[in-house]
Amino acid sequence: MENYISDRLKNVPKSFIREILKVAADEKIISFAGGLPNPKFFPVKEIQNACNKVLEEDGANALQYSTTEGYLPLREYIARRYKEKEGIDVSPEEIIITSGSQQGLDLIGKTFINDGENVLMEKPGYLGAIQAFSVYGPNFCDVTLEDDGVAIEELEEVMKNNKIKLFYTVPNFQNPSGITYSSEKREATAAAIKKQDILMVEDNPYGDLRFIGETVPSMKKYYDNTIILGSFSKIIAPSFRLGWIYAKKELIDKLVVAKQASDLHTNYFSQRIIYQYLLDNDMDKHIEKIIKAYGHQREAMIGSIEKYFPEEVKFTRPEGGMFLWVTLPENIKALDLFYKAIEENVAFVPGFPFYAKEKIENTFRLNYSNVDAQTIDIGIKRLADTIKKMM
Amino acid sequence: MENYISDRLKNVPKSFIREILKVAADEKIISFAGGLPNPKFFPVKEIQNACNKVLEEDGANALQYSTTEGYLPLREYIARRYKEKEGIDVSPEEIIITSGSQQGLDLIGKTFINDGENVLMEKPGYLGAIQAFSVYGPNFCDVTLEDDGVAIEELEEVMKNNKIKLFYTVPNFQNPSGITYSSEKREATAAAIKKQDILMVEDNPYGDLRFIGETVPSMKKYYDNTIILGSFSKIIAPSFRLGWIYAKKELIDKLVVAKQASDLHTNYFSQRIIYQYLLDNDMDKHIEKIIKAYGHQREAMIGSIEKYFPEEVKFTRPEGGMFLWVTLPENIKALDLFYKAIEENVAFVPGFPFYAKEKIENTFRLNYSNVDAQTIDIGIKRLADTIKKMM
Repeated sequence: MENYISDRLKNVPKSFIREILKVAADEKIISFAGGLPNPKFFPVKEIQNACNKVLEEDGANALQYSTTEGYLPLREYIARRYKEKEGIDVSPEEIIITSGSQQGLDLIGKTFINDGENVLMEKPGYLGAIQAFSVYGPNFCDVTLEDDGVAIEELEEVMKNNKIKLFYTVPNFQNPSGITYSSEKREATAAAIKKQDILMVEDNPYGDLRFIGETVPSMKKYYDNTIILGSFSKIIAPSFRLGWIYAKKELIDKLVVAKQASDLHTNYFSQRIIYQYLLDNDMDKHIEKIIKAYGHQREAMIGSIEKYFPEEVKFTRPEGGMFLWVTLPENIKALDLFYKAIEENVAFVPGFPFYAKEKIENTFRLNYSNVDAQTIDIGIKRLADTIKKMM
Repeated sequence: MENYISDRLKNVPKSFIREILKVAADEKIISFAGGLPNPKFFPVKEIQNACNKVLEEDGANALQYSTTEGYLPLREYIARRYKEKEGIDVSPEEIIITSGSQQGLDLIGKTFINDGENVLMEKPGYLGAIQAFSVYGPNFCDVTLEDDGVAIEELEEVMKNNKIKLFYTVPNFQNPSGITYSSEKREATAAAIKKQDILMVEDNPYGDLRFIGETVPSMKKYYDNTIILGSFSKIIAPSFRLGWIYAKKELIDKLVVAKQASDLHTNYFSQRIIYQYLLDNDMDKHIEKIIKAYGHQREAMIGSIEKYFPEEVKFTRPEGGMFLWVTLPENIKALDLFYKAIEENVAFVPGFPFYAKEKIENTFRLNYSNVDAQTIDIGIKRLADTIKKMM
């Protein structure tokens, strides 16, 4: 059967994370591995009310085929929210609803990446984007992520040596590192990027989940050729697979062709439910509850790391989102630590799948959104003990 | 912005049907253009009950991320149904849930089609498959669809001149033609296909909707290297975008990688709702109601065509599904007829987008699932009058 498989699929990295999550599903294990929002905050009752309302008032329409672009009132809501929250003027025509942000990434790859073109990724970068883009045969370049954004000199060096087609960034509370670009770094990044006619893709699934510090303007404010990806997965519920792309109308027109070929349209019933939820509830109040809990868990994790981890181990202090990033001394491989940690019933994600090019082996990702403070303390202690044994 | 667009997207035909449907949305127009199931038969109340049950009993889980393969009990249901209805032994591991059959087509293109490989289509063939596959740069070959399946001599000729990678077929009540392969033709097709190591893709969204005649065995019975696509869109509701692929486990493993890169997983909430619906209701009884109505509308349409259309106009007599196919005298272009018919407030889909290679211009598709018998008679009369004026 192997002879049937396309060459492009051979480029796609197998998901090591899927394998990890299977191991970590064992109830004994304290898992910092997943990237799951905390189900405690899913608005189950409110979603149920929304289902009943939509089905009672407009059931047959809500169950029929719909448009590729997505439900117009939902796109209008998203456009309005960009204006209110970020001061960006967005027309509903510049929004396409996608089947999760992952589909946004696939559509971007399909629509913009030719075989062999240079795609610039953060180092470390988001695994889902590496997978989605890999299908379309790019040549990945990467640029180191420092505490406040990419290293500008390195960025300029990479751009000098390579004609870049597309730059993919998660500027807020990045997955996997938790890093947020400062406004200075955004400006400097934009200034560098402008020199080549690069398409910037700003993926922003966590932007609403800021615990501390001030909101920093979107990359779009610094560089007009920016496409933004958004998602309801982290602020309402992931099972609906509802995300969106905001891009200039000319690009949306092409993304619509790609989406039509990909899945015709996103689940329309769920678009109606989410829109009804948004009409009848104050999402910002709901988000506040999530922020409070995740912020508390993030503090607990940082506190436990400070208490238990050896000094040689470095880590990031995210201002929001769901992850922090740990760098071990160079002689310790995160994958070796992973296998030892599993024996101690604690799990995380080794860093290597998050590198589009050269793999770095002494980093790993910790998730704090889905574990309570007390369990975090126990898990981090176990992990610290395992690290110490290896040092 | 044009310079950003990938070459592959330039291969994808624009959807003329989308434009037609916008025109046909005018309330004055009697539309035989769409491919919509009749919303009168959507089980709105039953879906509402399923939503309430799932959210009350297991709400938080139903709103969380899930597996790429899909909800296991739903895959088990589908596997059992293949055994019961078609006598095919299917393991749940051989099923992957897709975001509608359209995503099934995209995943098949992504996983199996290399640039420049020969993909064999029916002539006419399903537009959605032409679009999905086009993204992956195939060289399309085609073979004429006769009243009982593809022309076998022509098939052998095409295969002699081209090494075929994949053959795509809709053997039951094909979209657009309404044609069903006889068991003899299935056997002969399989016998021809066997000579090259071709991957057969049997797309079967309408198979349950048979009004007359006997069920014919799946292509899988005649040729083991067959992948089957299925869908709940035509038998429950399309807005959920729930379809599936049945393939050998080795191929499913690759399709899972492709799907993970494409949208991580299909809307899990909807998978839970549909499964709950299937647990609590008799789907076959529900399907009987649809068959009765569509069968009645199909008879009305054939009756009106026989009454009003000039003899020179040929048409198919589908045994199920939602469409029939009309062939005009060679000197009349269906597109010219389309514009004239719109002036008379009746719409259909001209045939040319359904040809993967050479376009034939004197054919068109009529849909009867979404129009009642009386309206059908009025619309067919208008269309007949327009044809007569052009002859």
